[in-house]
Amino acid sequence: MRVVLAYSGGLDTSVLVKILQEKYGAEVITMSLDLGQAKNFDEIAWRAEKLGAVKHYTIDSKSEFAANYVLPALKANALYEGKYPISSALSRPLIAKKLVEIALKESADAVAHGCTGKGNDQIRFEITIKALAPNLKVIAPVRELKLTRNWEVKYALKKNIPVKIDKDPYSVDENLWGRSIECGVLEDPSAEPPEKVFKWTASPKKAPDEPEYVSIEFKEGCPTAINGERMKLADLIQELNLIGGKHGVGRIDHIEDRIVGLKSREVYEAPAATILIEAHKELEKMTLTRHEVMFKNIVDMHWSYLVYAGLWMDPLREDLDEFINSTQKRVTGEVKVKLYKGSVQIVGRRSPLSLYDLNLITYEAWSRFDQSLAKGFIEIWGLQTRIATEKMRELAKQTSSNIS
Amino acid sequence: MRVVLAYSGGLDTSVLVKILQEKYGAEVITMSLDLGQAKNFDEIAWRAEKLGAVKHYTIDSKSEFAANYVLPALKANALYEGKYPISSALSRPLIAKKLVEIALKESADAVAHGCTGKGNDQIRFEITIKALAPNLKVIAPVRELKLTRNWEVKYALKKNIPVKIDKDPYSVDENLWGRSIECGVLEDPSAEPPEKVFKWTASPKKAPDEPEYVSIEFKEGCPTAINGERMKLADLIQELNLIGGKHGVGRIDHIEDRIVGLKSREVYEAPAATILIEAHKELEKMTLTRHEVMFKNIVDMHWSYLVYAGLWMDPLREDLDEFINSTQKRVTGEVKVKLYKGSVQIVGRRSPLSLYDLNLITYEAWSRFDQSLAKGFIEIWGLQTRIATEKMRELAKQTSSNIS
Amino acid sequence: MRVVLAYSGGLDTSVLVKILQEKYGAEVITMSLDLGQAKNFDEIAWRAEKLGAVKHYTIDSKSEFAANYVLPALKANALYEGKYPISSALSRPLIAKKLVEIALKESADAVAHGCTGKGNDQIRFEITIKALAPNLKVIAPVRELKLTRNWEVKYALKKNIPVKIDKDPYSVDENLWGRSIECGVLEDPSAEPPEKVFKWTASPKKAPDEPEYVSIEFKEGCPTAINGERMKLADLIQELNLIGGKHGVGRIDHIEDRIVGLKSREVYEAPAATILIEAHKELEKMTLTRHEVMFKNIVDMHWSYLVYAGLWMDPLREDLDEFINSTQKRVTGEVKVKLYKGSVQIVGRRSPLSLYDLNLITYEAWSRFDQSLAKGFIEIWGLQTRIATEKMRELAKQTSSNIS
Amino acid sequence: MRVVLAYSGGLDTSVLVKILQEKYGAEVITMSLDLGQAKNFDEIAWRAEKLGAVKHYTIDSKSEFAANYVLPALKANALYEGKYPISSALSRPLIAKKLVEIALKESADAVAHGCTGKGNDQIRFEITIKALAPNLKVIAPVRELKLTRNWEVKYALKKNIPVKIDKDPYSVDENLWGRSIECGVLEDPSAEPPEKVFKWTASPKKAPDEPEYVSIEFKEGCPTAINGERMKLADLIQELNLIGGKHGVGRIDHIEDRIVGLKSREVYEAPAATILIEAHKELEKMTLTRHEVMFKNIVDMHWSYLVYAGLWMDPLREDLDEFINSTQKRVTGEVKVKLYKGSVQIVGRRSPLSLYDLNLITYEAWSRFDQSLAKGFIEIWGLQTRIATEKMRELAKQTSSNIS
Repeated sequence: MRVVLAYSGGLDTSVLVKILQEKYGAEVITMSLDLGQAKNFDEIAWRAEKLGAVKHYTIDSKSEFAANYVLPALKANALYEGKYPISSALSRPLIAKKLVEIALKESADAVAHGCTGKGNDQIRFEITIKALAPNLKVIAPVRELKLTRNWEVKYALKKNIPVKIDKDPYSVDENLWGRSIECGVLEDPSAEPPEKVFKWTASPKKAPDEPEYVSIEFKEGCPTAINGERMKLADLIQELNLIGGKHGVGRIDHIEDRIVGLKSREVYEAPAATILIEAHKELEKMTLTRHEVMFKNIVDMHWSYLVYAGLWMDPLREDLDEFINSTQKRVTGEVKVKLYKGSVQIVGRRSPLSLYDLNLITYEAWSRFDQSLAKGFIEIWGLQTRIATEKMRELAKQTSSNIS
Repeated sequence: MRVVLAYSGGLDTSVLVKILQEKYGAEVITMSLDLGQAKNFDEIAWRAEKLGAVKHYTIDSKSEFAANYVLPALKANALYEGKYPISSALSRPLIAKKLVEIALKESADAVAHGCTGKGNDQIRFEITIKALAPNLKVIAPVRELKLTRNWEVKYALKKNIPVKIDKDPYSVDENLWGRSIECGVLEDPSAEPPEKVFKWTASPKKAPDEPEYVSIEFKEGCPTAINGERMKLADLIQELNLIGGKHGVGRIDHIEDRIVGLKSREVYEAPAATILIEAHKELEKMTLTRHEVMFKNIVDMHWSYLVYAGLWMDPLREDLDEFINSTQKRVTGEVKVKLYKGSVQIVGRRSPLSLYDLNLITYEAWSRFDQSLAKGFIEIWGLQTRIATEKMRELAKQTSSNIS
Repeated sequence: MRVVLAYSGGLDTSVLVKILQEKYGAEVITMSLDLGQAKNFDEIAWRAEKLGAVKHYTIDSKSEFAANYVLPALKANALYEGKYPISSALSRPLIAKKLVEIALKESADAVAHGCTGKGNDQIRFEITIKALAPNLKVIAPVRELKLTRNWEVKYALKKNIPVKIDKDPYSVDENLWGRSIECGVLEDPSAEPPEKVFKWTASPKKAPDEPEYVSIEFKEGCPTAINGERMKLADLIQELNLIGGKHGVGRIDHIEDRIVGLKSREVYEAPAATILIEAHKELEKMTLTRHEVMFKNIVDMHWSYLVYAGLWMDPLREDLDEFINSTQKRVTGEVKVKLYKGSVQIVGRRSPLSLYDLNLITYEAWSRFDQSLAKGFIEIWGLQTRIATEKMRELAKQTSSNIS
Repeated sequence: MRVVLAYSGGLDTSVLVKILQEKYGAEVITMSLDLGQAKNFDEIAWRAEKLGAVKHYTIDSKSEFAANYVLPALKANALYEGKYPISSALSRPLIAKKLVEIALKESADAVAHGCTGKGNDQIRFEITIKALAPNLKVIAPVRELKLTRNWEVKYALKKNIPVKIDKDPYSVDENLWGRSIECGVLEDPSAEPPEKVFKWTASPKKAPDEPEYVSIEFKEGCPTAINGERMKLADLIQELNLIGGKHGVGRIDHIEDRIVGLKSREVYEAPAATILIEAHKELEKMTLTRHEVMFKNIVDMHWSYLVYAGLWMDPLREDLDEFINSTQKRVTGEVKVKLYKGSVQIVGRRSPLSLYDLNLITYEAWSRFDQSLAKGFIEIWGLQTRIATEKMRELAKQTSSNIS
């Protein structure tokens, strides 16, 4: 049996190479995707070889990830349950797609991943894989063999697996759009996360004493430049991760509902996502009609839920994207943000397509807005409310007169 | 004609006392509500008398406002368009109710307010007043006579009206739940608000160099204590305004869709609202089921919209309140927040009714969650997505074979 | 082991009595609920005894079912995917509750049901049972042993099980609120259901040649009388099933999304549900404000989905009920329907709490509605739409001038 | 002044030609659109000339109306408040567009319409016109001069206006997609509409005694053939109006919320719309995933509301159309309906892109669906519901022990 394994180079998936060989009798091909995580991909490749992988793929998917996964999420202001920019969730369908591509190319019988049975990622991987290649087998050894970290550590030592074994066993996942940290002391939701779990963001206390202003340009919903300098999307995001991180921006700590029904406490670092979503929303409020703003809120929530829930491949996601892309045609302009010791503040925005109209809004005498129109609006807007209140008054009177 | 006027003591409504007397030939009764704004109500009463009001009412409505208006808003996590805690919007139906009560008691023919014809407040006042007392006349002199600030200033000088006339004519509204600032340079949405418009919040740069931790207890959705000290709701909110304000927390600056269709740039200070809503949401995510969390989001958005839009009296608001109150029965517990130079960070939460279950969630070996269940879930969860993808693949093949 | 079995008296559950005894080594207590289905409960009891049940419970739950399950569904206008009045879905949580009550009373170790692994009912039973009694074991022999009808028939013959074995093996479920028919030729969604699958409804062609008018009175959302005669809810529903059925009203045939992800073709008969929901909706449109009508639509859809999906016990269902009950306070009045050869037509409605106001609406000259108000409304209502269209025009011009 | 008037040839707009000439001093150009209403357009042209119109336009817009207005409505299953296929509402933006086109071509100063100030149509006309041509004046003489029918009749007699004056003054509007009837005895919502108000539909009692089966083919959401015969959309709709009308199908009678806040009782005839929407919905349930079906419901409701409310030009309508069109790519197949004495029954459906899969769903032994998967699904699906129920039980215990 030939298996393509999504290989991160860490303990879990290094152990899997061996297990797939020994317990599943498989020939293992490993695959690592560069999605912007801070990793040495040469070292990962070397390790895969050492472990006996018959072949290893290193794929730079940063641009594809930025354009086809992160950008739609930004356009959807995607924050699951109001907080999580679904960074890991976004990467899963891309990794799954690449696994399938390599499996088909290499005529593999199966693909394998290192997810446990209590998380979201198994769902995201497997639904995407099955949708793309219904006949490809999916192997999930951690879930199938109920592997635990302790067991893995012992196994790794016994098998001489060349990985560094952390004493602080946080489970970390990283890409352009964010970094998630789980396990260990973080499992106590009443305790503040220790400073050491953060790698991308400075402690606000140690952040610079001067605020930094950043101006972000958007064209049709896509950020194209910061401080006047045009950049490719993946680069722009990484640059904003650095700037935001320096100022302690983008730390997230909340209770999250996993798709498997568990509530979990999740900690993230996502400086660029935090800044860009905040700026993007503000520009939308300037350029979309209020009917669009209200309804897009519902679409955005649904998009985030769907992608979080592993349903990237459901046609509904594409349908929602069509709605969103239609709105984004006018989301063009510039937003100025101020970063300071952990906070992001929008301080200015402008757009050639702005629906803000000073000539109407101003309280100055030269305003073009005809105030007398409001009277008619108010009468009509409140008409049913008034009649209903009257009816309720009658009802209350009747009821009380019946009682007495 | 006898008119009850909502009197703030400022330029606008002071001018109105005279105008109502002179242009409408009315006998004016003035009414000022203490909703927690930092004002000298004795001085306001004195000024009303000076202006010839035949009677003046000062009413301390802080507790009623906190209990019947602010608390429902907090339970609804009310943030209009994701940003504005609808502080002014919440006060309007209460002021309207008091105007009606006094008008009935004093057998007045009309009530009057000082709103312009381009804002939201006229809508909120008039719909509530008309719903409560369909036969009471409402006079809106600023709108009816198209008064401008310049005209008012001249008139005030001419009539010797005893008000201080600001050179910086910001239009300010305050109560327990927030402070709004409009006009002047703020009408340019691309420029950062000048530091001087802020009164409740320190500039983050001048805020203390040490973060402050605040623990907030909730019982059935209502905050009952901070740092272990039980307080009445109105006091608790004012205390949090002080603490949060000291740390520069609660500045809001965004583009907002007025009900009259205008887009406006609005600036607010709302330290307590910002902190309490953030903490309350987090406690909900710990204690409500995910089905409740998702649907309540939609209810909350709608509640905020309705109240913002002046429809406090619509029976739908009460219907939504019933939903919300049902969810709040379990929103009991404690949330710890960290305030630092403009930012609020949730750092811990606990609840006797928490649905977070360490025994299930933990990645430790002793977890009670049976991972093998996930397999069945995944198959079923993704079933239609898989079939639909297959059908789309067939469709694409057909289409392309038709082309070639 | 002691097991309480939900016993219908049919082939499936009769076989289960034996299987539970023989394969699970259990002592079986049987329970049958009278929910309004046309069954001989004495015969069912006799059969249970014959099969060796150590005890049999017959419980008349018609009133409880009508009041606590059907009425909330009617208030929610519950039609899953716009068509199915969730009749079977509603009965499951009640049956589960009774199973648990008897199991606790009889100190049973487990409860058992006869559902397959591809339907919705297993989900509804098991989630409710587990929510009510987390420690009670649930046995699902049809799913666990993958029993098929053919196997069951052979087993029944071999074991001399006293049930009539149909040649046309439709799977039928009945209660007050509706009758569902599955299997056999109905599995072909392109073919019309044969006339013989219908038992409650006459073929429209054979229905009376004269239409019948029925007037239905509602008090706070609950039907209380037909044609002026007050009845208990369960009786009223059964009466309407007869009247409606006589006129061929209430046949439903549609594609339905099961919670396990399958699409199925479902056929129902539900005369009373069809008539009552139609009439109830109409009365709501007369008595609720338009804001309520619009939002309640979303609440209703969600209620139906939740109950269909087996989540009766989720606190969200109660939260939604609180919303719905708040709206129903004013849903009082009378609706006249006309039944004729398969169709229901609303032909009149009246209510003391009607928001319909002839004095406003009439096109006669004496109308009280001030038409000049509309001008202001229109300007404000369309303000942003106009500005946005202008901006899009500019954008289009720019784009085209860039091209040329 | 030069004015283009939307001219129907009836009393209202005939009077307007004269009034515009005499009271507004205008030169009048008349315009009549053929949208499928049963009218003699030559006679209308003749009458316009007689009335002194300087020019008359007759425009056949049936195809444009069908393709760009009706088809999007069908794809959106548009039924305002669950009942009204928004037939008149759909025609208004097209008429407005044509008015603007002619006004620009003829260098007119204004356009005029015959709507009253209490209906929806003024809103639909004026918002569209203002969005398309912000500088074009809109004249609404009926509203501005508060014309009543009685006054108009007298004026018409006095001025010798060549129109037939009905004794039964129903106000009727017609096009391809439906016929609306208002006024007179219909203003009493408790009384059944008299038979004579219906023109398109036979009384069910007089409809044929044999049901008629009609098979409708859809391609990407658009009906393309009936009973195997391909037709242009406008023709197909008119054909279905005849067939459906013959069987008494498509009578609608309900309470409706006008945008100006009034509740009104509305009566419609819409055989084709009724049949096509019913069939289209069913085909969607066969070909869309359940996630799409659920969310599209919300989109559809919103689309209907928006168009009903006169906001055809709001960019949100186009955004929603993009969503809808994305879903429609797979809505291809055939639906069989049965028409009989006022009722439409879906009796069969098939599609090459159906997600219904007999191999999974069948209860026969050879089903491919692995029933054991359900166990895992149920556990996970109900997990939080179970924990929440437990917590509520604890809470109830505490509360009751506190009381005792």
